[in-house]
Amino acid sequence: MDRILLGHGGGGKLMHELIEKHFVPAFDLGQMTDSAILNVAPGKLAFTTDSFVVSPLFFEGGDIGTLAVNGTVNDLSVCGAKPLYLSAAFIIEEGFLISDLSKIVESMSKAASLAGVKIVTGDTKVVEKGKADGVFINTAGVGFLSEDVEISPLKIKISDVVIVSGEIGNHGACIMAGRNGLSFTPPLLTDSRPLNALVKEMLACSKNIHFMRDPTRGGIATTLKEGAVASGKCIMIKEHLLPIADQVKGLCDLLGLDPLYIANEGILIAIVDKQDADKLLEVMRKHPHGRNSAIIGEVLTAPEGMVIVETALGGKRIVEMLTHDQLPRIC
Amino acid sequence: MDRILLGHGGGGKLMHELIEKHFVPAFDLGQMTDSAILNVAPGKLAFTTDSFVVSPLFFEGGDIGTLAVNGTVNDLSVCGAKPLYLSAAFIIEEGFLISDLSKIVESMSKAASLAGVKIVTGDTKVVEKGKADGVFINTAGVGFLSEDVEISPLKIKISDVVIVSGEIGNHGACIMAGRNGLSFTPPLLTDSRPLNALVKEMLACSKNIHFMRDPTRGGIATTLKEGAVASGKCIMIKEHLLPIADQVKGLCDLLGLDPLYIANEGILIAIVDKQDADKLLEVMRKHPHGRNSAIIGEVLTAPEGMVIVETALGGKRIVEMLTHDQLPRIC
Repeated sequence: MDRILLGHGGGGKLMHELIEKHFVPAFDLGQMTDSAILNVAPGKLAFTTDSFVVSPLFFEGGDIGTLAVNGTVNDLSVCGAKPLYLSAAFIIEEGFLISDLSKIVESMSKAASLAGVKIVTGDTKVVEKGKADGVFINTAGVGFLSEDVEISPLKIKISDVVIVSGEIGNHGACIMAGRNGLSFTPPLLTDSRPLNALVKEMLACSKNIHFMRDPTRGGIATTLKEGAVASGKCIMIKEHLLPIADQVKGLCDLLGLDPLYIANEGILIAIVDKQDADKLLEVMRKHPHGRNSAIIGEVLTAPEGMVIVETALGGKRIVEMLTHDQLPRIC
Repeated sequence: MDRILLGHGGGGKLMHELIEKHFVPAFDLGQMTDSAILNVAPGKLAFTTDSFVVSPLFFEGGDIGTLAVNGTVNDLSVCGAKPLYLSAAFIIEEGFLISDLSKIVESMSKAASLAGVKIVTGDTKVVEKGKADGVFINTAGVGFLSEDVEISPLKIKISDVVIVSGEIGNHGACIMAGRNGLSFTPPLLTDSRPLNALVKEMLACSKNIHFMRDPTRGGIATTLKEGAVASGKCIMIKEHLLPIADQVKGLCDLLGLDPLYIANEGILIAIVDKQDADKLLEVMRKHPHGRNSAIIGEVLTAPEGMVIVETALGGKRIVEMLTHDQLPRIC
């Protein structure tokens, strides 16, 4: 038997065999009841969820499994939480290759291990052929925050500095290139990676990180706009300061895309107190996941709630949220 | 605009509008960052996840939203945990009616309110028409356990008593009837309901609840078999003691189904110390979600790891786990 049957989602013998053969060795499922039981310290809990429907399932430098683990790790991390436990829920299309499922589960196991989190509970559903697209994965996650960490767009203030932790647009461009049959030498890889270790060093370096997000769908444009609107400030970034790989620039020119709107799966935007910006940048650049960190802008008084980009030639343009979906199913 | 577009999953303006119009009024999303931040007491955390792919989405007495909330509430409850917070992640097919999404979200809001839990974080993805089937929903949940609660199949012992909290098979039969265009007078309703209040009273009544599960996919046969295998004991149930609605009996006869394998979404199986069985039954029958509770069997020494049903005529048959999937997409 090399393909998923409806019975693999039936709750009975086939499902038990699938779980025991593929999920138990890869994850930390413990007693296999319907809930994982975990010991926790008192404090603030961070709780998040994300479903992943990326197409194609496998791409340069990762797959849907890598994304599903790193995405949830990062959602917890950018709140300032230490990610601890993940769930993994699969919706699989009948006929899906068990060998592909196995590869994805293996990726999740490796990604969890790399991020230092445990996958402790899960679920498997199977739908008829044609009623899903290969496999969809949901990961929820819980993490803990120190009592002294409080990151919120309401803390953004005038003269704060905007930092990005790496080159923008690599993940979205990688998926887009894959879909269009384009390849690069060297290959353009997804930026999917866990940010918890980088964030830990940032929090140790500065108590003045006011805002932190990972700009996935909608790209850094949408994330910055969210920060501007929530804080009622103006965020001004300079185009020539944005770290962008040549391949991404080329692809954007070719396909008419704006890198500000392209999804990232392993970078973060931080808006921080000006006095801490240089030491934070130094710490971030020393970390393997922050080597290309850069200061890209600052917070101004007006126009309120706006994001402005200063172009290389000194012109200015207003950046709005993504209004359509330029790259569906990017994650 | 009355239908879901790909852009509703793009992370930008359309998605923000969808969230603000439909999800914010119905759920407890707080600051709308990617993770919810919650204050917790020290102790044992229960963490669970379930995806829901039921077809049809709407059925007698409930819909996919009701199931998604109650299912996760129940997974936490049968571990002995008090369910507190849920996540809600939607995978929506392009073209899905926004009015249907709105009904489902409303159901989730009501179900959460009824169960006393909060939906605190969420996610929305949209896939192209034909790449999903309407909507799939994942709910993950966190709850807390008292330090003195420990429910585990390893605690099952000889002469323990098996209790079921209500009529079996109603949910599965309701879905099956709906799919086959059959209707009953009065209508056969899903049994989907939250079990946390019932479990709370059970835990207050007895410290000797050894095993507790909600028998969803695979029915009570599969749940009892899991208990028998994990404990290495024999579970013997008597067919004539099983509470089954006449409509479910009739439908099972008509379609050739065994009610032991039909999914339930609002009953639980408890295996408890014999000395506490009668007082537990009394407490359970007083609760609106346990009115039809019944003692259905007992735990024997041998044959080890087996579930035996004694038929009304005194014959015996061995019950195995569900080996195929008699009712795909029941939840």
